[in-house]
Amino acid sequence: MESTILKRRDIDFLLYEWLNVESLTGRARYADHSRETFNAAIDSAEQIATDLFATHNKKSDAQEPHFDGERVTIIPEVKTALDAFCAAGFMAAGQDYEYEGMQLPYVVDRAIAAYFTAANVATSAYTFLTMGNANTLLKTATPRQVERFVRPQLAGRFFGTMCLSEPQAGSSLSDITTRAEPDPVDGPEGERQYRLRGNKMWISAGEHELSENIVHLVLAKIPGPDGKLIPGVKGISLFIVPKYLVDEDGSIGERNDIALAGLNHKMGNRGTTNCLLNFGEGRFKPEGRAGAIGYLVGEPHKGLANMFHMMNEARIGVGLGATVLGATGYLHALDYARNRPQGRHPAEKDPAKPQVAIIEHTDVRRMLLAQKAYTEGALALIMYCARLVDEQRTGDSPEAQARAGMLLDFLTPIAKSWPSQWCTEANSLAIQVHGGYGYTREYNVEQFYRDNRLNPIHEGTHGIHGLDLLGRKVSIQQGALFKAVSEEVTGTIVKARAADAADLHAYAGQLEALWTRIGQVTQTLYGAGDMNKTLANASLYLEAVGHVVIAWMWLEQAIVAAKKGDDDFYRGKLQACRYFFNWELPKSAQQLDLLETIDTTTLDMQDAWF
Amino acid sequence: MESTILKRRDIDFLLYEWLNVESLTGRARYADHSRETFNAAIDSAEQIATDLFATHNKKSDAQEPHFDGERVTIIPEVKTALDAFCAAGFMAAGQDYEYEGMQLPYVVDRAIAAYFTAANVATSAYTFLTMGNANTLLKTATPRQVERFVRPQLAGRFFGTMCLSEPQAGSSLSDITTRAEPDPVDGPEGERQYRLRGNKMWISAGEHELSENIVHLVLAKIPGPDGKLIPGVKGISLFIVPKYLVDEDGSIGERNDIALAGLNHKMGNRGTTNCLLNFGEGRFKPEGRAGAIGYLVGEPHKGLANMFHMMNEARIGVGLGATVLGATGYLHALDYARNRPQGRHPAEKDPAKPQVAIIEHTDVRRMLLAQKAYTEGALALIMYCARLVDEQRTGDSPEAQARAGMLLDFLTPIAKSWPSQWCTEANSLAIQVHGGYGYTREYNVEQFYRDNRLNPIHEGTHGIHGLDLLGRKVSIQQGALFKAVSEEVTGTIVKARAADAADLHAYAGQLEALWTRIGQVTQTLYGAGDMNKTLANASLYLEAVGHVVIAWMWLEQAIVAAKKGDDDFYRGKLQACRYFFNWELPKSAQQLDLLETIDTTTLDMQDAWF
Repeated sequence: MESTILKRRDIDFLLYEWLNVESLTGRARYADHSRETFNAAIDSAEQIATDLFATHNKKSDAQEPHFDGERVTIIPEVKTALDAFCAAGFMAAGQDYEYEGMQLPYVVDRAIAAYFTAANVATSAYTFLTMGNANTLLKTATPRQVERFVRPQLAGRFFGTMCLSEPQAGSSLSDITTRAEPDPVDGPEGERQYRLRGNKMWISAGEHELSENIVHLVLAKIPGPDGKLIPGVKGISLFIVPKYLVDEDGSIGERNDIALAGLNHKMGNRGTTNCLLNFGEGRFKPEGRAGAIGYLVGEPHKGLANMFHMMNEARIGVGLGATVLGATGYLHALDYARNRPQGRHPAEKDPAKPQVAIIEHTDVRRMLLAQKAYTEGALALIMYCARLVDEQRTGDSPEAQARAGMLLDFLTPIAKSWPSQWCTEANSLAIQVHGGYGYTREYNVEQFYRDNRLNPIHEGTHGIHGLDLLGRKVSIQQGALFKAVSEEVTGTIVKARAADAADLHAYAGQLEALWTRIGQVTQTLYGAGDMNKTLANASLYLEAVGHVVIAWMWLEQAIVAAKKGDDDFYRGKLQACRYFFNWELPKSAQQLDLLETIDTTTLDMQDAWF
Repeated sequence: MESTILKRRDIDFLLYEWLNVESLTGRARYADHSRETFNAAIDSAEQIATDLFATHNKKSDAQEPHFDGERVTIIPEVKTALDAFCAAGFMAAGQDYEYEGMQLPYVVDRAIAAYFTAANVATSAYTFLTMGNANTLLKTATPRQVERFVRPQLAGRFFGTMCLSEPQAGSSLSDITTRAEPDPVDGPEGERQYRLRGNKMWISAGEHELSENIVHLVLAKIPGPDGKLIPGVKGISLFIVPKYLVDEDGSIGERNDIALAGLNHKMGNRGTTNCLLNFGEGRFKPEGRAGAIGYLVGEPHKGLANMFHMMNEARIGVGLGATVLGATGYLHALDYARNRPQGRHPAEKDPAKPQVAIIEHTDVRRMLLAQKAYTEGALALIMYCARLVDEQRTGDSPEAQARAGMLLDFLTPIAKSWPSQWCTEANSLAIQVHGGYGYTREYNVEQFYRDNRLNPIHEGTHGIHGLDLLGRKVSIQQGALFKAVSEEVTGTIVKARAADAADLHAYAGQLEALWTRIGQVTQTLYGAGDMNKTLANASLYLEAVGHVVIAWMWLEQAIVAAKKGDDDFYRGKLQACRYFFNWELPKSAQQLDLLETIDTTTLDMQDAWF
């Protein structure tokens, strides 16, 4: 049986036939690498994901982490899997050799991540949070902090978290009230040592015993001279707050003043602990007194900017997770559809004839084709973004690097939100293909659907990303980001028109018309003269632009496929592209029509009328 | 705090201000009734639903029924609630006085059902299955069968099921293989007594100890003279197969040969047992030998037609369940949005100002308005259908009754499928309004979302209803059903154009254009010359027609609201109608465009290309 985790053929297509990832080996950073080393790493990931991650995915959902008031218990398979992940060096797959890393391109690192996430999103979360934490610190931490808190994370000894939200401040970070006050001790961190007090909510991987220590990255406010917290985001600073203090020789010291208030019990993603943490309430007394000891990272009051690096990476990570949950659900549904006999063709009137596999039914093929179009379209976007990260890091010129950064900034809200919406829809279709079986926990797809429903919520809700795209990304730098993406889209249109395939010429025309339309509608919205009106339908704008971006990704794939000749794989790519342009893209046209009217239906709605 | 189960104001609006339900009291069957007696019954339902059904909804999800190999254990609150339901007489709310019924109109009975289902869909399921079972038997069973199996169900002593699917025959009933062979005994049922052998899958309420007995209605095939089962649906007969035989005095006799093979473990609807039952495998030996004793209902080989009465009722019941799960989710989200402070208005630059309730954010209002539009639009359709049932039963002339039946036949696949799709979407939006909290089992909305996801699957999948609408309902009787609905839609358009409200004139034009379009597209599809092509996109057709039907329901509501003047409730109705026409209805236009091309993308897709 083919793997139902991910379709390797598709990964290879994206990396080698489309994104030309082998060419990266011509750059100094990746000079030791080759297609063979890339493949060896992905092979290893696929193996461990198959053998150790997928195998406990259902169990860690059914037997979720449990807190008895003292300790959190997690099924042992989670630690076994994570230990294997770390032992294989994947925690540092993309890091420099000096950090014991593999120095793999980010796009290859994401292919690796795709396997682990598709196999078990909940267990994988521990690794991604740790890698994001380490990357943030590598940008801004002192060499001493890197030694004490980054190296052990990259080695897999410590795991990491990001602590942003508070019970009264979810999406609104400016309202956090966790206080950080200077700790007047003459310790090795000097003036960087603070005492933190406050409550942090929604902390994924916030408590467990999977690693020797947990490195919390915490946003908190340093009070002003009057003792008051500065309102707004300006007052936010970033701190390392370890679960256990780390002694001078790097060994684990005493327990810091961080207490688990309780675990959240989620609909899905149950294998990842998610909790409310109380910092500095006096449950523990590190260095003799209450207050969680934290170390300032970077400059005071610049915490949000520092944390945003982690958040952008996490956002593409969310998009990746949503995508591969959709993709694995699709493969499960495909496998079921090929093997489940039920019913007959409409033209077959003889009930004595044997039943056919349900993939023979057009409506089942519709559901499978939609899943293919959503998930392979989304994966293309995620891999394209990952390739841009490599370009941003190692591009041939500062201009090329800056341009990649602009493209990435524009595409990030879409790469986070589009898969979260449409690959969850793919999971719903995977259930539907399974019929009643799909609704039971005896099968796998209902869990994917529950797991995926988190993705439109965390790392910025759907609505927040709509505001980010329409309120910031299209307009900042005098529209330079939008212009850069437009040039890339135009490049695709030109290539499609040069292709030896009439369908592609028609798709190029559709894409061009809609991209032009986006530009016009954006101008119309900004001409509304009232930012409330401009932004009222930002979520719809995000969805409309998202669909057009995915159509662009499909046209890119179709251009490659059309060149390759008459092979089932390429025929499938072309058919999925056809599906997307015929069935999906018209939805954008309708959304842009509505946006153009600067519709105020939702703005005008009054509380009392509900 | 207002009720978060259902909004009584909306129920009253539908019954008394729109559907003119009071006028039914002019008919002989309902002559003893008045608005006061209708309200008293609904009040009682609301009270019991609030006090005894809603209160264990979470608990029966968290502590689902358990089978230890011998007995099924269900939390005791379920029985307490059902006993109260039966004691209040609701099992026979719509039945004749001669069956100890309340003889309430079906539309009032559905308002009652709405409360119980919204409060606890899983516990309510036991009652609906029993009522559907009893109604089926009242159509076709012998007086003796009615005495022994219907009266105890209407009194709440026995509960009922419907046993259709088998492991190898889910949507394809023609492939069932349960055998029913004549039992040559001279019992009181005479030649109606058979012995059944076979396995039945997906039996909701198939095993429990909530009632004294369980009356299974089972589809099985009587072998022909050659001992072979007749292929196809023609061989199907309907049987009563009780869990316990019933003695001549009506008391409970020995155990019948029905064994529980196991419970299915579902994503939602966990409080309703759902199981695989083995009939006649010899676990029990009723009347001395193996084989489940069953009693033929109606004529042999007419089982499917007899069962379809129950299925049509069940389909509107599924639509109702989907609708009110959406509706209660909406009320929970509304309550949360009014009470959760987070963030500030876009124009507010001072972070020291207090946070506002999230209902102040336009995007949150969008999500609430969409939920209102979906759920109140769906509830209008369900109540309209229920009113048609009353018309079918008690209309002034045979012609009026027949016409109501035609309208109902056409609308049933939509009343089942549209709420299943869009009120599940409403539940997703309810989660989104709650943010991270909505994703946790500490809140209610994630359960509604899980519960509702069943509805596009059972009682005929989405795809099956698409085939029913496009392949049968629009074309049978030379299109008479479609014509009847068209006349009703036209009546609404005429009323809207006569209304003193310019908006309504515009909506009337939109609705007219789209309804005309549906007629044209249907003709185009039937002109394809190949039923495979005609039906390839039947699911899309179902969705397109569904949205237009709901727009019609909204225009009906808006006509009433526009007359009533400047009250918050009516303003809300008008704004939701505006939302539906501006935001939702254009989706149909785009779907009809695609349908008109007789698109073969999904038909052309090949297995090997996936």
